[in-house]
Amino acid sequence: MAVSKCRRLSGGALRELLDSVESVLFDCDGVIWRGDQAIPGAADVVNRLKKHGKRVFFLTNNSTKTRGMYADKLRRLGFDAAEDDVFGTAFCSAAFLKSEAKLEGKVYLIGSAAMQQELRSVGIEQVGVGPDPVSGAQADWAGVPLDPEVRAVLVGFDEHFSYMKLNKALQYLRNPDCLFVGTNTDTRLPLEDGKAIPGTGCLLKAVETAAQRQAVVVGKPSKFMFECVAGRYGLDPAKTLMVGDRLDTDILLGSNCGLKTLLTLTGVSTVADAEAHQRSGCDVRLGMVPDYFVESVAELLPALQG
Amino acid sequence: MAVSKCRRLSGGALRELLDSVESVLFDCDGVIWRGDQAIPGAADVVNRLKKHGKRVFFLTNNSTKTRGMYADKLRRLGFDAAEDDVFGTAFCSAAFLKSEAKLEGKVYLIGSAAMQQELRSVGIEQVGVGPDPVSGAQADWAGVPLDPEVRAVLVGFDEHFSYMKLNKALQYLRNPDCLFVGTNTDTRLPLEDGKAIPGTGCLLKAVETAAQRQAVVVGKPSKFMFECVAGRYGLDPAKTLMVGDRLDTDILLGSNCGLKTLLTLTGVSTVADAEAHQRSGCDVRLGMVPDYFVESVAELLPALQG
Repeated sequence: MAVSKCRRLSGGALRELLDSVESVLFDCDGVIWRGDQAIPGAADVVNRLKKHGKRVFFLTNNSTKTRGMYADKLRRLGFDAAEDDVFGTAFCSAAFLKSEAKLEGKVYLIGSAAMQQELRSVGIEQVGVGPDPVSGAQADWAGVPLDPEVRAVLVGFDEHFSYMKLNKALQYLRNPDCLFVGTNTDTRLPLEDGKAIPGTGCLLKAVETAAQRQAVVVGKPSKFMFECVAGRYGLDPAKTLMVGDRLDTDILLGSNCGLKTLLTLTGVSTVADAEAHQRSGCDVRLGMVPDYFVESVAELLPALQG
Repeated sequence: MAVSKCRRLSGGALRELLDSVESVLFDCDGVIWRGDQAIPGAADVVNRLKKHGKRVFFLTNNSTKTRGMYADKLRRLGFDAAEDDVFGTAFCSAAFLKSEAKLEGKVYLIGSAAMQQELRSVGIEQVGVGPDPVSGAQADWAGVPLDPEVRAVLVGFDEHFSYMKLNKALQYLRNPDCLFVGTNTDTRLPLEDGKAIPGTGCLLKAVETAAQRQAVVVGKPSKFMFECVAGRYGLDPAKTLMVGDRLDTDILLGSNCGLKTLLTLTGVSTVADAEAHQRSGCDVRLGMVPDYFVESVAELLPALQG
């Protein structure tokens, strides 16, 4: 008999689920906080999970902060958290380039100072961070000076994204030996009041279109994001719970890696979205159906009291 | 019996083809010129076609010049040409917004001063041309001041493309009544020596990804580009020849509109590309197989002498 999915999690099932896992992975924005406000009860849940002997990690596709910056924010909002508990795409893409791709050379970085810092902390130099407006004419753009030591283009969130950066990425990527890595493919960053701004996925799509190549993506739903944690801490996928607010990143990552999955409704996706995926019968979309859902992570509290 | 396609055009077939058409549409870059150099013999071909009573038009996806700027360049390179013979996407997208979309309001323009000028000449005001670097923080970006009279976003080539422009386009396009138009989807602008820079297609893809909407595209292979000429001059598709160097824009436009098609090998596409499309058996790709090919438009000369 097929196990029914996307069930409301409460009571005995909740206790049973928590008993069955050793580790819990939380997405951040829309799950344990929104912008600069903690989701009510979230810190309590995280801190109690730890008291109950669970290992807790934070997995975010956001590339604008270092592990240290995330740990500071977590602690400020009342979470019991250390740098080593945080896996953001700034850190994970540096880890990917260093340990997986064994990069020898520099990175052309479309990204933030935080990404620069994470690269530096694994000994990788970058060029490209900061404003880079266009100058000169077409013929100059194609012949723009390139750094001969660059061996990879890395695209993350960059508010200074410009035509010149797109052009430089293209010129580096004309060399088929130049690696091409993206932090994530999120198309929008949701803000308060239903507002949103363009996400890294837009910048990456522009570079992919120019380069006529597809980037290796480090962030969720790419398995690398889980392997990055699992490799360091020896996690057993079957005993790991992924908690997230996005079906196409968090829940799909969980499905891709054989984790248990829990959707929380304080962020982007809805139960109706999940049900539509379930009805589609399409394999990829079925991977976006969570095992369970809750209105908010605060609903885990009853099973953690006492 | 199926007519064989992609035949080398010469001798009697060439004469027959030219006798059978009243109008000839030329793509520009890679067909009658490369950068600032005319293709040898091209001006002679165009001028003789006119002497033989053919109507000649110039159709280009390039959005960086007005009709007037193109006519100047054509004449400088020896072509007998007037403004009204030129259909670039700066002109055609202004025509689209005015006559097809009946736009009442302003345009948020990601594009050039030439586009601004073509819009103005049909009485449409724009905002957005020129540099627009980011300032402030995330919360400011989502709340960036918008012009309440804007009713359309138009994306063409813009060397000042920036994160802030992408963001403004997203904010305007959150209104489902805001039109969304792109000049073309060319991914690269080929330059001399096999060099290339990012084309409008990259910028449009970024905006489409952010807006989660698809733009109406004015340029080749969209039928609108041909209708723009045909509507003004009463062209008969069956008696019109499209000459181009790109299978996915020029030749596909011709197929989409029922024109005769001629590939010239002085630009982007090759006979091998065309043959691969033919072998694919896939409907869309078959539309990219030209009726004929020549090494250069100069090969039309023998049929036009005397």
